Amino acid sequence: MKIVKPTLVVDLVKAEQNIVRMLNKFRERSIEFRPHFKTHQSLGVAELYRKNGVTKCTVSSVGMAKYFADGGWKDICIAFPANILEAKEINSLAKIVKLYIIIDSIEKVSLFSAKISANISLFIEIDTGYFRSGILYDKIHEIRKIINEITRYATFTFSGFLSHTGDTYTVNEPKNVLSVFENARRKMVFLKEAFIHDSPEIIISMGDTPSASLSDNFDGIDEIRPGNFIFYDVMQYVLGSCTKDQIAVAVYCPVVASYTERNQLVIYGGAVHLSKEKIVWKDKEIYGFIAIPDESGFGKIVTGAYLTSLSQEHGIVSFEKGLLEDIKLGDLLAVIPIHSCLTVDLYNEMIGLDKKSYTKYRTF
Amino acid sequence: MKIVKPTLVVDLVKAEQNIVRMLNKFRERSIEFRPHFKTHQSLGVAELYRKNGVTKCTVSSVGMAKYFADGGWKDICIAFPANILEAKEINSLAKIVKLYIIIDSIEKVSLFSAKISANISLFIEIDTGYFRSGILYDKIHEIRKIINEITRYATFTFSGFLSHTGDTYTVNEPKNVLSVFENARRKMVFLKEAFIHDSPEIIISMGDTPSASLSDNFDGIDEIRPGNFIFYDVMQYVLGSCTKDQIAVAVYCPVVASYTERNQLVIYGGAVHLSKEKIVWKDKEIYGFIAIPDESGFGKIVTGAYLTSLSQEHGIVSFEKGLLEDIKLGDLLAVIPIHSCLTVDLYNEMIGLDKKSYTKYRTF
Repeated sequence: MKIVKPTLVVDLVKAEQNIVRMLNKFRERSIEFRPHFKTHQSLGVAELYRKNGVTKCTVSSVGMAKYFADGGWKDICIAFPANILEAKEINSLAKIVKLYIIIDSIEKVSLFSAKISANISLFIEIDTGYFRSGILYDKIHEIRKIINEITRYATFTFSGFLSHTGDTYTVNEPKNVLSVFENARRKMVFLKEAFIHDSPEIIISMGDTPSASLSDNFDGIDEIRPGNFIFYDVMQYVLGSCTKDQIAVAVYCPVVASYTERNQLVIYGGAVHLSKEKIVWKDKEIYGFIAIPDESGFGKIVTGAYLTSLSQEHGIVSFEKGLLEDIKLGDLLAVIPIHSCLTVDLYNEMIGLDKKSYTKYRTF
Repeated sequence: MKIVKPTLVVDLVKAEQNIVRMLNKFRERSIEFRPHFKTHQSLGVAELYRKNGVTKCTVSSVGMAKYFADGGWKDICIAFPANILEAKEINSLAKIVKLYIIIDSIEKVSLFSAKISANISLFIEIDTGYFRSGILYDKIHEIRKIINEITRYATFTFSGFLSHTGDTYTVNEPKNVLSVFENARRKMVFLKEAFIHDSPEIIISMGDTPSASLSDNFDGIDEIRPGNFIFYDVMQYVLGSCTKDQIAVAVYCPVVASYTERNQLVIYGGAVHLSKEKIVWKDKEIYGFIAIPDESGFGKIVTGAYLTSLSQEHGIVSFEKGLLEDIKLGDLLAVIPIHSCLTVDLYNEMIGLDKKSYTKYRTF
């Protein structure tokens, strides 16, 4: 396999280990697993889930739902505030798969009721403190009115409460992830208890990679929807969600210039190949970790070498004196992305790497 | 034209005005115009240049060079450190177009000499203080050795010195842009004077949008290569390179949730539609300006409403109390991107908008 330009490479062995570890964690607890597919966006990669018995998935757009529906996935949740402008596409999808959408206002239920003729399941999105989308968990009175509105329509099923604890990403150590998540879990369980009497079938759906990786307490949660953990990335490593060895994705980038006097290399690999996501690491802003790939994979992450600057197509790798001295023009470096979801989205295909072979996977 | 999801929209009237203004500025000074096409990456948009008499272009990758070569562009500069792993593709391209590549070391000239059989022009990339790529302008002795190496090969033409004054982006007001550029210009002219006796055909090629927009002194420069100015963006507006009305690109995003109690809307429009480029504006980090589109275009940029947060597909628009109160679920907002080049790169197509019609343009 000859790589001559920035190329997304996935370590399939590690990705499957990440899946199996997470799957076992939730099977032990009898919690439904509905992984988010926005991280990989690939039917080929999704087979790693299917072969391990996963049949439900989460996506972040109607287009992505259609892509996976066309590829044989039959139970899909679009975990994004339902977009009334796509009501027609949502209706078509709901005719061919078991489809969940999320809403958080009476107004939205009414708007959709006029446009959806197929049977469809509605989650009420709950805001437990991330303040992105969803109705605030304590607006009980308003939540009851939304439920009443949903139950007016024969084609609508009220499925329960869904939240995304994205605020676990804004803290900086595992104990804070745990406390954010525990607070959110309690709020969700409280809601379920408040409404289960009238709606005995409802479930709680939660899920983000930091808490799914770090927490041990999922009491009362029925379904979990993390996505990033299949690949992990620098951000998750820094948060404490994974080890360096569990990171399963990298962008292979050719070295195109060398400036040893300032301990820097320039790689063909810029913002359009990695995204502009950055993180503060050891008091410096970085755009990625660096590894030196070989025949068997990405190789070990080099301590003391970081992607420190990104233009549209250029990346600057800065390293401590003495490191990377053997790297030559035309060698490949593996950049470990800060946020794998955003990096993967930039590609139409990725190379799946296992111990025996390389496979090309198309993405949505 | 029905827009139901995040869609890249270009105001063709403004884009052409931006082209003509810049073109006239350099025609008056008899400076060759070789605009950078990485901003739009589209053969359709490139026609706006061609109809105004532009025949030369700059690109940032071998793949992009091939795309424009296949579309009839015959004089192309790949303004990125030449990648030896793509020598075969470069050689093929050089057979069908007048091709310029950039190098900055003897080693690279030697590496390419073994792989290139077609006639090709080489610029020596000069670093005037941006410290990204290129040989430092004052390494005269080494530059002479590179020139000598180039002239050893009959298929190589030494074209002169090229630089990108990217450090104009890192300053915060027009007078600093001008001083960075003036310093760089003097260094380049000094180099040309040092070598023109031995190589009378050499030229100086420079170009970045801030200095091309703001400076009046281009003495001694033979060719200019800005790209961003065709669309401009928030970053250029903040630098002082353009007015708000000259910005010619936006992403139309559906409103999917409304939280009036916190003066925020959620749009379907996230990092995968806009890029994570941000800027500090009035002491806050923002990811875009907001306008309210109508039949005739983006509409005026709203003062007091900004894109303040981005997830993968969600954007949060924060506004001063009283603004955007009429906006409803399913309305479209126009997000003016921070960095148009990175935003455009995220799309495979864009909608060209003029006073009479909409046209769909494919991109590379």
